[in-house]
Amino acid sequence: MKKITVLGSTGSIGTNTLDIVGRLGEEYAVIGLAAGSNIGLLLEQVRKFRPKIVSLRTKGDAARFKEESGDPGVRVVFGAEGAEEVARFDENDLVVAAITGIEGLRPTIAAVETGVRVALANKESMVVGGAILRSKAAASGAEIIPVDSEHSGLFQCLAKERKENVQKAVLTASGGPFFRTPLAEIKRKTVAEALAHPRWKMGRKVSIDSATLMNKGLELIEARWLFDLEPAALGILIHPQSVVHSLVEMRDGSTLAQLSITDMRVPIQYALTYPERSASDLPALELSRVRSLEFFEVERERYPLIAYARQALETGKSLPVALNAANEAAVEAFLGGRIGFADIAAVIGAVLDGHRVCEAETLEAVLAIDRETRGRSENHIKKKE
Amino acid sequence: MKKITVLGSTGSIGTNTLDIVGRLGEEYAVIGLAAGSNIGLLLEQVRKFRPKIVSLRTKGDAARFKEESGDPGVRVVFGAEGAEEVARFDENDLVVAAITGIEGLRPTIAAVETGVRVALANKESMVVGGAILRSKAAASGAEIIPVDSEHSGLFQCLAKERKENVQKAVLTASGGPFFRTPLAEIKRKTVAEALAHPRWKMGRKVSIDSATLMNKGLELIEARWLFDLEPAALGILIHPQSVVHSLVEMRDGSTLAQLSITDMRVPIQYALTYPERSASDLPALELSRVRSLEFFEVERERYPLIAYARQALETGKSLPVALNAANEAAVEAFLGGRIGFADIAAVIGAVLDGHRVCEAETLEAVLAIDRETRGRSENHIKKKE
Repeated sequence: MKKITVLGSTGSIGTNTLDIVGRLGEEYAVIGLAAGSNIGLLLEQVRKFRPKIVSLRTKGDAARFKEESGDPGVRVVFGAEGAEEVARFDENDLVVAAITGIEGLRPTIAAVETGVRVALANKESMVVGGAILRSKAAASGAEIIPVDSEHSGLFQCLAKERKENVQKAVLTASGGPFFRTPLAEIKRKTVAEALAHPRWKMGRKVSIDSATLMNKGLELIEARWLFDLEPAALGILIHPQSVVHSLVEMRDGSTLAQLSITDMRVPIQYALTYPERSASDLPALELSRVRSLEFFEVERERYPLIAYARQALETGKSLPVALNAANEAAVEAFLGGRIGFADIAAVIGAVLDGHRVCEAETLEAVLAIDRETRGRSENHIKKKE
Repeated sequence: MKKITVLGSTGSIGTNTLDIVGRLGEEYAVIGLAAGSNIGLLLEQVRKFRPKIVSLRTKGDAARFKEESGDPGVRVVFGAEGAEEVARFDENDLVVAAITGIEGLRPTIAAVETGVRVALANKESMVVGGAILRSKAAASGAEIIPVDSEHSGLFQCLAKERKENVQKAVLTASGGPFFRTPLAEIKRKTVAEALAHPRWKMGRKVSIDSATLMNKGLELIEARWLFDLEPAALGILIHPQSVVHSLVEMRDGSTLAQLSITDMRVPIQYALTYPERSASDLPALELSRVRSLEFFEVERERYPLIAYARQALETGKSLPVALNAANEAAVEAFLGGRIGFADIAAVIGAVLDGHRVCEAETLEAVLAIDRETRGRSENHIKKKE
């Protein structure tokens, strides 16, 4: 019996994770859930999976949940401490870290510190706290298994190989909804248009990151820490069909690739069953139906954020933290209708121009840089409103 | 220092193998060469690589070679026994088995019996003698590393995976020169047209096998023995770009694939350096230049031989031996201008119709079935002349 805890259970990755746990059957149990404020959905999840501990965002949410559930068998906690308590729950065999954004960093660190296996879906944790997570994992013995389809693919391809033989690890990007949009039209794109991702059903934040390609920029930085690869050994290819998730070019001219249908439940299941693989009842990939797989280089002009992400990847230290904070602030402002689509890149560019690179090797340093950058981001956003 | 012997050194795989050994540098030496009658090329190879033993097809060839070379340091042998002596040479670290057709079976068995690592390029050996080679390898401890690009790809993808997790192993086929030819026109195709393979530069026999897709049928049977996979777990996809060489579908919905440029030196180098990988100075695969990778199901009507190959794969025993013998005879007759392209399938079909399936678990049985089938093939060929 594998006992699973899901941090961020009511989000997109969280609900898909629980769907897979339900399909995997009796050898998997859900033991802890950390949610935000979606009490109704959390109640459903608790009724179905009977965890031992749940966490909500606020004390009020926790009180309402207790009232509505009336379940005496569940321990109910709340806030950042609550999420961390769920992450540290001593019966965990596997913690799925799926709280989006920097909010997910503390509970992810908490889980890693216990030495448990962590299925990492929260890429921001690795982007801003890669050095911290790596050293904590080394100390505790925690294994970090990626949940992102691209990193799951890399993980599977790299498992077969020695690192010195790897020439390049390539993440594919669908190119998002504006891959074929005339450049001049992109800046007028609305929130609804930016959310209409052609391939993946995802949360709102990550859908916008996909339209700007920042998603892939953050994934480059995540891959750097997950696989201990040099920045020069990391690349991106646009692949509109999103069937090939990643490729590993070996120095002898062989390339290994991982493919699947465009459904995040495939890499989620891999992370849950690893090092085993279980039969899946999801539809199989049928290449003769997809017919054609296309690959394109990244157009710098179409995706200006990639240059910032490359810079953060290469510079390291505080720059990825600032990049992520500026991006979270700018995307939130765009989703809230405060700024236009092209302003996302403009705000991030301006914020990074004003950033002084410093060390970011402690949680406190990361959080301070994050706060400071969000403050400056807000100033730049206001100028664009 | 890895000491390499090449059986079939003057053929297409042989010359490419020696090209790669030259590129790999001082850690690789050529110690033995078995050739046919191409004395001039063998002389060049001997001058360049300084092997300790060489073999030629006939006593006369051997005498001429000795006369022309005048090299006292090389032991010169000849005939089937000579090739076997080279295969068994006690300093061999790796034997590249690249003698085409059933002629390669005896020396391949000889190498496997010594327990040395064998890089297998002679697919007919596995097709007709899979059971024999498997049991000999199990007894001697010989490792068999495939050289065919498709099997090399499968070998790389299957590494570290557990067999019970493999749902399907798929070999890709370019479709050959007649993939887009109107069906009615195929039967009128000439030898020159059938030899004009769109992707791979190969020997004449294998080029025709590629036009009929028999090449892929034989590879299915080869894969069955190399990887101990059930017939139902083996498939073919047409992939005209020949960039993806094979795919392994795992039962959890993940597919692993191996890709490279269309150059047989990539899998040859892998087989030589395995389990290591060495840097290659061949051009890298650039997917954004290839742009599009297409996949199609196999059209049964276009490639009638695939049905025969499937039957041989599923029935086993003597049927793959008969299939291979009928195919070798029919292809030779086509290359010699005796029969037309469509007659290849007609001859093979008629020969297999008259074949009574029996056991084929000894070399003697295999050779007897081969002889008997060639005799019957010749009768059918004569009727078509």
